[in-house]
Amino acid sequence: MGGSMALAMKKCAFATKILGYDSSPENAKIALELGIVDEIISFEETTRADILILAIPVEASVEILSSITLANPNITIIDLGSTKQKVSEDCPLTIRANLVAAHPMSGTEYSGPSAALADLYEGKTVVLCDLQKSGVNQIKLTKEIFNKLNMKIVEMDSAVHDKHAGFISHLPHLMSFSIANTVLNQEDTQSILTLAAGGFKDMSRLAKSSPVMWREIFIQNRQNMLQCLSAFKSELTKFESALESSSPDELTALMENANRLYKIFK
Amino acid sequence: MGGSMALAMKKCAFATKILGYDSSPENAKIALELGIVDEIISFEETTRADILILAIPVEASVEILSSITLANPNITIIDLGSTKQKVSEDCPLTIRANLVAAHPMSGTEYSGPSAALADLYEGKTVVLCDLQKSGVNQIKLTKEIFNKLNMKIVEMDSAVHDKHAGFISHLPHLMSFSIANTVLNQEDTQSILTLAAGGFKDMSRLAKSSPVMWREIFIQNRQNMLQCLSAFKSELTKFESALESSSPDELTALMENANRLYKIFK
Repeated sequence: MGGSMALAMKKCAFATKILGYDSSPENAKIALELGIVDEIISFEETTRADILILAIPVEASVEILSSITLANPNITIIDLGSTKQKVSEDCPLTIRANLVAAHPMSGTEYSGPSAALADLYEGKTVVLCDLQKSGVNQIKLTKEIFNKLNMKIVEMDSAVHDKHAGFISHLPHLMSFSIANTVLNQEDTQSILTLAAGGFKDMSRLAKSSPVMWREIFIQNRQNMLQCLSAFKSELTKFESALESSSPDELTALMENANRLYKIFK
Repeated sequence: MGGSMALAMKKCAFATKILGYDSSPENAKIALELGIVDEIISFEETTRADILILAIPVEASVEILSSITLANPNITIIDLGSTKQKVSEDCPLTIRANLVAAHPMSGTEYSGPSAALADLYEGKTVVLCDLQKSGVNQIKLTKEIFNKLNMKIVEMDSAVHDKHAGFISHLPHLMSFSIANTVLNQEDTQSILTLAAGGFKDMSRLAKSSPVMWREIFIQNRQNMLQCLSAFKSELTKFESALESSSPDELTALMENANRLYKIFK
């Protein structure tokens, strides 16, 4: 996410100089070699910048904000994490106006600098949360960036965001990890996978995602996740009952209902 | 599936004349207009051909074979359905040698003649089941076709096929219908879908699939489906428990296990 943002901001000529920090010296080196960042700096130095973009696991964002000292008191800090309520609420009030809680609704199953894509954000939606808590200048600058990246900006309460993100992002990830585990637990995994075509590939793609990144998202959003899971399991149980009673009518009704999705969602 | 096969067989110059029958006169007309078939014939006439390809709901295949009279006693009938045990076992013995039970591991969420794609089968795997029950000439001709289409041929017992297809094709469809229903049952469906990005789009793509086609696959394969569903639900329950106890270690272990899929499956 961070590497893609750096490439995109350079491509649209918004930023002339990108300074980077990564807790992994190896990733930092790769980012420099790939030309994603112009210079590697220490974490302390990052707070001197005009804009600090946090593209790190969601618990790390919360922790960093709780102890950060801003060398530039007017800095705009944009957090790109997948959960927004905790970072928005736990950010110390002394620097809360500096923070814009953003969630670009794009990404891939890959992470690290070699996964960076200059057009990752192009045409996608970005959710900005709890803007009433952010400073006027910080909001203005953030919107300028996302407009320049040709993104559609949606404003939302962070609690509502987290609930929606649970259904359309976090639950799909959990499903994907789970179907991967289901197949891996079969005796004949290898021969099952020999036959795998588009359907399974799509459904298991997200199972490549980073456990470090996702365990923090799942835990921060656990109340919503438990509700999403319960709702999803109850839909599965409806199919199970229809299968148990071999009822073509019940199965048809469930699938016809699901088909409706594509009348309201292209 | 049938339209794509017709286009592919013409493209590779295997077939010079394609005769088509569809129980829907409207679809038959579209197939003719799109140049997928050269002529529309009655169902009775189809049995005069050299090769009859059945690309119809799986229960329809079973029913048709039980009552068909072959005008050409040497005809090769290739059934393309997603379940293979019932069609293989229920086919009358008098015509069983004419039948080759095949399952091309490709397809899209769309059906009907306007969804036909000439390269749908290119480079994909096709499973041929219970070949000991098919005639030598029928097997030879079928393999010639699939080789000409540049497909990878895998031979398999039909019961094993149905079990494997349950995990890598039928369960993913059931999951996709269920996540569509989960989101559709939320009060704020519209606003959730506004945010939907790649992950949700991939996971819900199969929810566009035809209920008529899928109810028959689910019912024919219900014993395997109930086992797949039970295995999948138990994987979801592991995530649920890890979430309930807010255990990063349990979540990490589940996701690291899922990540292994991509070491054995590219």
